[in-house]
Amino acid sequence: MTDGEDYDAVVAAVRERVDPDGRERRELATVVERLRERAERAIDDLPVDADVVQVGSTARDTWTAGDRDIDVFVRFPPDLDRRNLEQYGLAVGEAVLPEGRKEYAEHPYVTGEFEGYTVDLVPCYRVAAATDIQSAVDRTPFHNEYLAARLDDDLAAEMRLFKQFLKGIGAYGSDLRTRGFSGYLAELLVLEYGSFRATLAAAANWHPPVELDPEDHGRRSFDDPLVVIDPTDPERNVAAVVTESNVARLQHYARRFLAEPDVEYFFPEEPTPLDAEAVREQLDRRGTTVLAVRFDAPDLVEDQLYPQLQRSLDGLVRGLAAADFEVLRAATWADDDAVLFVELSVAERPAVERHVGPPVHVAEHAAGFFEKYAYTDAYGPFIDDGRYVVERERGVTSAEQFVRERLLDVGLGAHVQTALEQGYEVLVDAAAAALAENFGAELAAYFDPSP
Amino acid sequence: MTDGEDYDAVVAAVRERVDPDGRERRELATVVERLRERAERAIDDLPVDADVVQVGSTARDTWTAGDRDIDVFVRFPPDLDRRNLEQYGLAVGEAVLPEGRKEYAEHPYVTGEFEGYTVDLVPCYRVAAATDIQSAVDRTPFHNEYLAARLDDDLAAEMRLFKQFLKGIGAYGSDLRTRGFSGYLAELLVLEYGSFRATLAAAANWHPPVELDPEDHGRRSFDDPLVVIDPTDPERNVAAVVTESNVARLQHYARRFLAEPDVEYFFPEEPTPLDAEAVREQLDRRGTTVLAVRFDAPDLVEDQLYPQLQRSLDGLVRGLAAADFEVLRAATWADDDAVLFVELSVAERPAVERHVGPPVHVAEHAAGFFEKYAYTDAYGPFIDDGRYVVERERGVTSAEQFVRERLLDVGLGAHVQTALEQGYEVLVDAAAAALAENFGAELAAYFDPSP
Repeated sequence: MTDGEDYDAVVAAVRERVDPDGRERRELATVVERLRERAERAIDDLPVDADVVQVGSTARDTWTAGDRDIDVFVRFPPDLDRRNLEQYGLAVGEAVLPEGRKEYAEHPYVTGEFEGYTVDLVPCYRVAAATDIQSAVDRTPFHNEYLAARLDDDLAAEMRLFKQFLKGIGAYGSDLRTRGFSGYLAELLVLEYGSFRATLAAAANWHPPVELDPEDHGRRSFDDPLVVIDPTDPERNVAAVVTESNVARLQHYARRFLAEPDVEYFFPEEPTPLDAEAVREQLDRRGTTVLAVRFDAPDLVEDQLYPQLQRSLDGLVRGLAAADFEVLRAATWADDDAVLFVELSVAERPAVERHVGPPVHVAEHAAGFFEKYAYTDAYGPFIDDGRYVVERERGVTSAEQFVRERLLDVGLGAHVQTALEQGYEVLVDAAAAALAENFGAELAAYFDPSP
Repeated sequence: MTDGEDYDAVVAAVRERVDPDGRERRELATVVERLRERAERAIDDLPVDADVVQVGSTARDTWTAGDRDIDVFVRFPPDLDRRNLEQYGLAVGEAVLPEGRKEYAEHPYVTGEFEGYTVDLVPCYRVAAATDIQSAVDRTPFHNEYLAARLDDDLAAEMRLFKQFLKGIGAYGSDLRTRGFSGYLAELLVLEYGSFRATLAAAANWHPPVELDPEDHGRRSFDDPLVVIDPTDPERNVAAVVTESNVARLQHYARRFLAEPDVEYFFPEEPTPLDAEAVREQLDRRGTTVLAVRFDAPDLVEDQLYPQLQRSLDGLVRGLAAADFEVLRAATWADDDAVLFVELSVAERPAVERHVGPPVHVAEHAAGFFEKYAYTDAYGPFIDDGRYVVERERGVTSAEQFVRERLLDVGLGAHVQTALEQGYEVLVDAAAAALAENFGAELAAYFDPSP
């Protein structure tokens, strides 16, 4: 990063790149109009009434230039039963996006390409208030209305800056891999604090847990590091998915940026992927033991896959710790293959382990312990600090043995369990360098970790 | 041990061996009389009055057969100043035991061989009560009087049984290596419970802390696992030196013996010393790393040497733990050489260590941490659970390196420190088997630990 670039100059340069120009706006408007018409025609063929609303950042002029996502919601009467809602919704979706495919959130919806844009066509209920929703998506039009009523061009530009900043630091997106700031949350924060700069200044000084309630109507408490009560629903924390680390990440980069503004925070360089040789060098330098479990990635959408992988990685790390091995750091990555990558600072244990029994004075319990071990191969029982202690044979003496013999016994995500039961490969130390072929960028970030 | 020997038969067999016969008694009485005469003659040459009292188990008929220790105390007037007490005391000691040598407790005294017995000739003050003592040894004659007034032949026999039992299980002796039950304490317990068997039955059911106060005059509390208020001094715990483990040891063996009486508890077989080959086999089987620090033993009496060695061993174990190595077990032994013997279950660490910094939101502290590491070779800072974390280079990556480079920095006994500064040898793994030459019996007990 270069030193001392002036805040205004940096922001101007970023706006050059993130503010959509007139042509992009006009093109988008035309495409949205065409989608709306097609949807309304399809609705005319249905036995119920429905309306069409555009939502999301492209509806509010808060998208960053080059984003090609359009969200169109079709709102049905709230007394329509679920089966019909789904059936009519898919009918409209298929009519608007004949090349599209079904996806599943709470309801099925249709997603597809349309004139170069990625369009989601989502059925929902037209409820009277966000607190009456029958399905999570029913809330979205209220979010859209709330923000649209409070936005002007200047504020929209500030929101674009903040969103691009979050993208640059890797904290944008409420998907379950990132667990960062959603677009709606980002916009609410800028609305609350008044500008991009004020938002960063506020975040830099946060002391989590941070609680914001723009409409001052919250009526329950949340156990999250960041709480932003939904202006359209007093029972909901818009920031529920945001991790403590992503809050900290925003705080860290807000401070750094305000101290020394730089365009690079918004558009960071991608790290150069490591090759196998570079991975081996890192492992040599660190002197750790690496174990990588490689298996066929379960066929799941990312929002299901990554929580499963993370849960499985946590289970493996806990299992290794319970077997007295010590994990320095761990990560999980996926493309066609999935990988649980574990780096150990203690990967070997001797053949015996210390096992502490009850205090000798707890007569019955102590006698049971003594009888259990007195006539075995264990060393002892002997007495240490008034307790029986034995040194008994250890079942697993290396982390590699643990992974080869016990992996399926640890807490794993259900789909990961199934995939591992089909077989997996364990890459140890230098052999793990082969992961560079598919995960060179991930390994680069792993071995050069930034906040 | 053989099964099912009957309690009475076992006790009878033990009494055969521990009750002194008439000849031993008569011989002892003759020797004591001769000592007394010699002491009284020496006192006649002094410018002060003094009397001679025999104390200890040979004075009370509670010694076990074959014990050859006689304690003779010379009591001086309480207004005699310390220098004269010491001078006169030594004069008497040297007259009685011309071949004897000076030893130092609170005062100097003379110890020596006399007609086949080991005699301590100790000067003290003839105070009015044990609570008026000017020196710890002044108390001893009161202990003797208290017990002598309450003993008969049967009770003395019960005391001999209990003492021999304590010897057999390795818990006899208030010296600072054993930290077990003194003769006086053993006798008080039997006096309190009424018999050897009742003492074991009571001990088997103890729930430490155990508090006994035979004269019901205790007026302070103690933080010891076993408290026996001295019948001659309400401020003193006779069992202060007894460790939790020795209390537990007595409880363990009391239960075992009562369940299955056997002479062997009183006269256990000595373990066969291990040779170097057997030590290597043990280390192979256990798969641990052994480090032994060998050095010239400081020239100290055992009651000073063993606390120093133990403190040094504790310091080394704590130092290793603070450097992230894990000690499975450790021991210290001495003859001409002293040894700190440490067996590790984690003896190696990678080149990097995880170092957790402050939460990112603690702005000033966090910024200091970030600035400290951001421009170094350390990996990170990155963010984990909302905190800055780095992986930095580790100073010491093996326990052997620690012992070679840092041993003198750990908490050591002062005399051990001085001895180690003169030089020490580090024996690693198989090389430590060479210790079998001098410490074969200790190694045998180490690798076949009993309660």
